[in-house]
Amino acid sequence: MKKILSAAAALLLGVGAFAQQNIFMGAGVDSPVINEDGTVTFRYQNPKAIRVQLTGDFLPTQKMETQFGTFESAGIVDLKEGQNGIWEYTTDFKVAPEMYNYSFTVDGKSGVLDPNNSFVNRDVATLTSLLLVPGDRADLYAIHRVPHGTVSKVWYPSKTAGFDRRMTVYTPAGYEDNPKAKYPVLYVLHGIGGDEDAWVTQGRATQILDNLIAQGKAKPMIVVFTNGNISQEAAPLENSTGYVKATMGLPQTMEGTFETAFGEIVSFIDGHYRTIAKKQSRAICGLSMGGFHSLYITLNNPDMFNYTGLFSAAIGTGSEERATYKNIYENVDGKLATYFSKKPALFWIGIGNSDFLYNANTEFRKKLDAAGYPYQYMETDGGHIWRNWRIYLTEFVPKLFK
Amino acid sequence: MKKILSAAAALLLGVGAFAQQNIFMGAGVDSPVINEDGTVTFRYQNPKAIRVQLTGDFLPTQKMETQFGTFESAGIVDLKEGQNGIWEYTTDFKVAPEMYNYSFTVDGKSGVLDPNNSFVNRDVATLTSLLLVPGDRADLYAIHRVPHGTVSKVWYPSKTAGFDRRMTVYTPAGYEDNPKAKYPVLYVLHGIGGDEDAWVTQGRATQILDNLIAQGKAKPMIVVFTNGNISQEAAPLENSTGYVKATMGLPQTMEGTFETAFGEIVSFIDGHYRTIAKKQSRAICGLSMGGFHSLYITLNNPDMFNYTGLFSAAIGTGSEERATYKNIYENVDGKLATYFSKKPALFWIGIGNSDFLYNANTEFRKKLDAAGYPYQYMETDGGHIWRNWRIYLTEFVPKLFK
Repeated sequence: MKKILSAAAALLLGVGAFAQQNIFMGAGVDSPVINEDGTVTFRYQNPKAIRVQLTGDFLPTQKMETQFGTFESAGIVDLKEGQNGIWEYTTDFKVAPEMYNYSFTVDGKSGVLDPNNSFVNRDVATLTSLLLVPGDRADLYAIHRVPHGTVSKVWYPSKTAGFDRRMTVYTPAGYEDNPKAKYPVLYVLHGIGGDEDAWVTQGRATQILDNLIAQGKAKPMIVVFTNGNISQEAAPLENSTGYVKATMGLPQTMEGTFETAFGEIVSFIDGHYRTIAKKQSRAICGLSMGGFHSLYITLNNPDMFNYTGLFSAAIGTGSEERATYKNIYENVDGKLATYFSKKPALFWIGIGNSDFLYNANTEFRKKLDAAGYPYQYMETDGGHIWRNWRIYLTEFVPKLFK
Repeated sequence: MKKILSAAAALLLGVGAFAQQNIFMGAGVDSPVINEDGTVTFRYQNPKAIRVQLTGDFLPTQKMETQFGTFESAGIVDLKEGQNGIWEYTTDFKVAPEMYNYSFTVDGKSGVLDPNNSFVNRDVATLTSLLLVPGDRADLYAIHRVPHGTVSKVWYPSKTAGFDRRMTVYTPAGYEDNPKAKYPVLYVLHGIGGDEDAWVTQGRATQILDNLIAQGKAKPMIVVFTNGNISQEAAPLENSTGYVKATMGLPQTMEGTFETAFGEIVSFIDGHYRTIAKKQSRAICGLSMGGFHSLYITLNNPDMFNYTGLFSAAIGTGSEERATYKNIYENVDGKLATYFSKKPALFWIGIGNSDFLYNANTEFRKKLDAAGYPYQYMETDGGHIWRNWRIYLTEFVPKLFK
């Protein structure tokens, strides 16, 4: 009788025969496990496999030499087969607090997710399993029992695009219960290939906001995560065109259209939320392509933003020369002079010391230095990676609207 | 120069070295592809694999005999290896319009996602790749260029649970632009193991609502997707307790606590949204455990809901006898009499003809028939699966608030 009840309970899960199979067969393996001594154990059950490896960004990196230069690549280690075909690997070091990506390589096939871990991340078309080791700054990336803001998927009519487009809007805890309060607004932009979900999933931005606000380290603010691919309506699953294969060649990404169209986003937000609709209460930041966008949106609208953050900004790639709206990228020196003459509260630059955009950002800083324009600068270890962008957001947000 | 630019563009994607690797190496294989003749082709690149199979709920089902009875199981077919280790399979039949789940089995290891398809679905701890074949009813599951509602993740203070809990709230297109309009509310409940995301991801509920409302087939309404696991704050990634392994044994799921606490959810929604806060403008429905919840929330609050939908309701499993709050499940005949004496607008039951809960639902209908209580009934092919629950939602929603 007990057996029948538990089988019935399993079937009540509300899943198809398909998934039920996995539930019946996949149980019993714990992975990943953060051990008491700070090491982490990974397990993968597959009696038929000949070799199982693990790659993840907590492992020491390897240098990868290519014709385009030297890049860092995640390390890779072997799991050892034990009883019942359960492969296992435990780090021989404490894994520092951070949010990490990992996956298995099974008989040479890379990118195999950990089937026992439902923390999965999509980045463009690549899925990885997630490991969040709590502590230190990584505690900002976790959910805590603090007041939570509301995270909404909102569609706005884009005249530029000719169709409705989706954005993610964070309203801080208390927004609904204080119907007369007005709030400053931070716009947060993603990289090429990302979308309006990227900062919320990999960036853990809404957790960072909840936690910084609860700790009194950041002002309550509205945060808007735009989709910077103006030719798309929304993230892959939410397009009327169906599945959009990840590609390097999305049109209208770094050629001026999005920068030109940004005003319609600001107007929509000011028209639909209780914002303090003036420069003193507006900030913008972005990673990679989003840093490039943030720079040019700021320079072409010198009265719009009082705070600008460039996170590993994709400047100096030559896209300015191939632009549709070349005027957006022209006369940078003059635009910088106008912008800084208005004394913005904060111009902030962050980059990793092995980022392939490091030199371009250094050149840009030299230009600012030569002109005597004030800015704040943060240099971190590592390259063009989410770990750095989360760090930059946690540094940038507390400086806003003070 | 061209090569360097495209490599630079690839690196601009805003992803770590880790994911970049996959982008460099994984390109070039299209899968899945809906062909002009209505067949579908699946491809999987793996030169080292010995056998690659495909399983999915569009394939003819197989009967699976177990000690608990006969269940349907998804079919499985072999892919054939071609050039460059690209395995391929094309259906020998037109695939009917529907949203399907599928995955590969590589050398006996099941549950391998299609690495070229970023449409991925999480159900409890199981991930599957998605295939949406457009046409007929499946068009309701797709995004179209129609006005879209806003989908928000909202936290409410649960006195019963003792902490804040998350729900998903859909406000229809026009809600923000008509600040004096008031709307009816539909509450939609998930199955055991699901959460406040389930109906939005697998259920495609917000697409169904957008499309039915745009077609004039449903009234604009607020829709609330609750989390029926009262011991949890939210879906797996959004819990302060970190990763919660999928389990059959979540406490407080079908023992009366959630049903008892439902009033605090209704109060929160009526307090924070422009609702028509009365029975005539309230509906509730749910699948499996959510159908069970919907039944008992309705019967214990006969003045709360004018429309109730039971989708493959998990009644007759014996959980009522093991309940903490037994009173919720007692005196069903008396509660039915009271409820139906108040002449609700709609009591709706849907179930698949091979659902393991078919007999229990038939018994329940016999009870209603014997007493002469009016209800509407829909019987579909297949079992305890999302395909049926999506169908039931598309049938139920147009009947509301007329």
